[in-house]
Amino acid sequence: MTEVRVAGVGLTPFGNEPERTGRDLFAAAAADAFADADVPRGDVEDVRYGNFMGELAEHQGHQGPLMAEAAGVTAPATRYEAACASSAAAVRDTVVAIRNGERDVCLVGGAERMTNLGTAGATEALAIAADDLWEVRAGMTFPGAYALMAKAYFETYGGGREDLAHVAMKNHDHALENEKAQYQRAIELEDVLDAPPVSEPLGLYDSCPISDGAAALVLVSGEYAEANDLEAPVAITGTGQGGDRMALHDREHLARSPAADEAAREAYDDAGIAAEDVAAAEVHDCFTIAEVLAIESLGIAEVGEGISAAREGYTTADGSVPVNLSGGLKAKGHPVGATGASQIAELTAILRGDHPNSGAVDGSTVVAHNAGGTVASCVVHVLEVIE
Amino acid sequence: MTEVRVAGVGLTPFGNEPERTGRDLFAAAAADAFADADVPRGDVEDVRYGNFMGELAEHQGHQGPLMAEAAGVTAPATRYEAACASSAAAVRDTVVAIRNGERDVCLVGGAERMTNLGTAGATEALAIAADDLWEVRAGMTFPGAYALMAKAYFETYGGGREDLAHVAMKNHDHALENEKAQYQRAIELEDVLDAPPVSEPLGLYDSCPISDGAAALVLVSGEYAEANDLEAPVAITGTGQGGDRMALHDREHLARSPAADEAAREAYDDAGIAAEDVAAAEVHDCFTIAEVLAIESLGIAEVGEGISAAREGYTTADGSVPVNLSGGLKAKGHPVGATGASQIAELTAILRGDHPNSGAVDGSTVVAHNAGGTVASCVVHVLEVIE
Repeated sequence: MTEVRVAGVGLTPFGNEPERTGRDLFAAAAADAFADADVPRGDVEDVRYGNFMGELAEHQGHQGPLMAEAAGVTAPATRYEAACASSAAAVRDTVVAIRNGERDVCLVGGAERMTNLGTAGATEALAIAADDLWEVRAGMTFPGAYALMAKAYFETYGGGREDLAHVAMKNHDHALENEKAQYQRAIELEDVLDAPPVSEPLGLYDSCPISDGAAALVLVSGEYAEANDLEAPVAITGTGQGGDRMALHDREHLARSPAADEAAREAYDDAGIAAEDVAAAEVHDCFTIAEVLAIESLGIAEVGEGISAAREGYTTADGSVPVNLSGGLKAKGHPVGATGASQIAELTAILRGDHPNSGAVDGSTVVAHNAGGTVASCVVHVLEVIE
Repeated sequence: MTEVRVAGVGLTPFGNEPERTGRDLFAAAAADAFADADVPRGDVEDVRYGNFMGELAEHQGHQGPLMAEAAGVTAPATRYEAACASSAAAVRDTVVAIRNGERDVCLVGGAERMTNLGTAGATEALAIAADDLWEVRAGMTFPGAYALMAKAYFETYGGGREDLAHVAMKNHDHALENEKAQYQRAIELEDVLDAPPVSEPLGLYDSCPISDGAAALVLVSGEYAEANDLEAPVAITGTGQGGDRMALHDREHLARSPAADEAAREAYDDAGIAAEDVAAAEVHDCFTIAEVLAIESLGIAEVGEGISAAREGYTTADGSVPVNLSGGLKAKGHPVGATGASQIAELTAILRGDHPNSGAVDGSTVVAHNAGGTVASCVVHVLEVIE
């Protein structure tokens, strides 16, 4: 197998851009990725694009060719959808195509336009990541689902709202220097605990925002990188995906994520690493409790101990294994289809040393964890610096 | 590379089933595919699912895990969307995963629920396969787009409505014995020419129906087939995909489909075949003119000569290269997300000799052509009988 190198990354600022179309956002991210990669658009052999709610937010399907065009590329293009894990799913098939010699140069990424729907509209649109027949029609939305997961966690393993508040505070701290982040401001414990409840025990600061934004990656084979003398020191060395029953009521334990466990196991085996090798992680903290579950699945914390990781400083920028140095979904924002690719963009910048938080990482192996729904889908990637 | 064998296929009847959910339809198709394959569900390593308009028709995204569950499988699951080529795009990545040894057993397919939207609602939902900003808001729907393509064809190469009528008559004839087809009845030339116009020069019988239905395939590696002594004589030996600008107004020629040309070229190169080797084809005849364009891209007819192929009997069941022996989208029906996988299911049955039209094929190499939108996406697969 050949290496899969990250030749270039591009991100729009994440935030409130209701007037910008999906294609506008993705065109900007792709332009930055091509400039960063120093790869001509004409070399791109295919485009994979992650998007979740374009049918509802923009009355637009068939976004693959539309986004290829926006990026200035004429090539086969497919849209991938795995709820909030859409662009990581797109990255995964790109990795498989490149490492097996099927492709040398691919554009992959994602975008989401959400704020034009308003908060209620976006919340309703997000709900289609749950089971429409058995969850959505019963009134379930994602804040409610993750609140159930948080309650189950507290009952089984202990912990409480104050522990979760430290996850939010940490991720806001991490975003302070990240110019692409939706929120570049610190929050205090009282801010979190006194915030309006969203769905008990989760409050406003336990929840990621609704965001517009795009992310793009130019991935190339090791042979292409060398033949073209590219500076592409970061490789995607492992990919894993797990699946679970769709509805929360079908899970054996509300505070466990077997799809994420499986994705991590497969990605680590693939890369030939162990959890102990992980120096930093970007994880899917759509709600603070989700980060806790994610780091347990990744083996960064033992089961039942993830809840105290942020509070004890283990996952902060000056901790042993910093988590969500970008700010995470919580502070960087969560334009759904962009999130998975954006994690890889942030980690690449971190490993290359051109991220404001690069200095926090002691090691050259990092992981990205992108989950869909209540973790009925999960995709994990391992990134490493190649000598 | 290892062989990719079609171990089992399953199809629901295509037609008017407004009360059946997408998961109900896909569960039925998958059950048939597993029974046909004699492969245990527990061996399935991942699920790829094509669907186009689930967000609009069922208020349901994140259908990957939902459909895996419906099929009785717990495995990573992703939804693929490339408009009407959604499930062929899903098949393509499955082929890449298996032939490179990444996977041994995969479930792939697709489904669409459409008739619950009504004709106007389904037509509006289908329109999201076009460019919402520049085509849909200007009033363009797909019958109108394909009517423009037909007019451009007539002006450039000649031919007329009567030629197209023979495409419709042929495909209705082919469907007569196909129990899964939406229409099992012959039509006469006058029926077609006297039918109500849909968008000049296309009339009612130039257009495929709106359909509900599902298709599923169990694909396995050659090693798995042999180790488990499966009867799986048909292999997918070539895959190709092409892309084009999204909006019709950006095309150089309205009566040419470069994305299909490219998909065919890649698939043929991949399989090591030439157009002359093709003994039969299933092509994307969403409108009669689309079949004409498709057979020209596939090299079954020369450019400008596809228009007369059905009338002259070249592509009929008793012709040299029968096209759409299933009845095609025109008579078999077109549940969008199911169509690409259903073409492969039909061709597999044809090659195995257990299809009512198996006797029409003189050869062991066939192709499937599945297009999205006005062929901004196209995926072609080559199937061959393995000794």
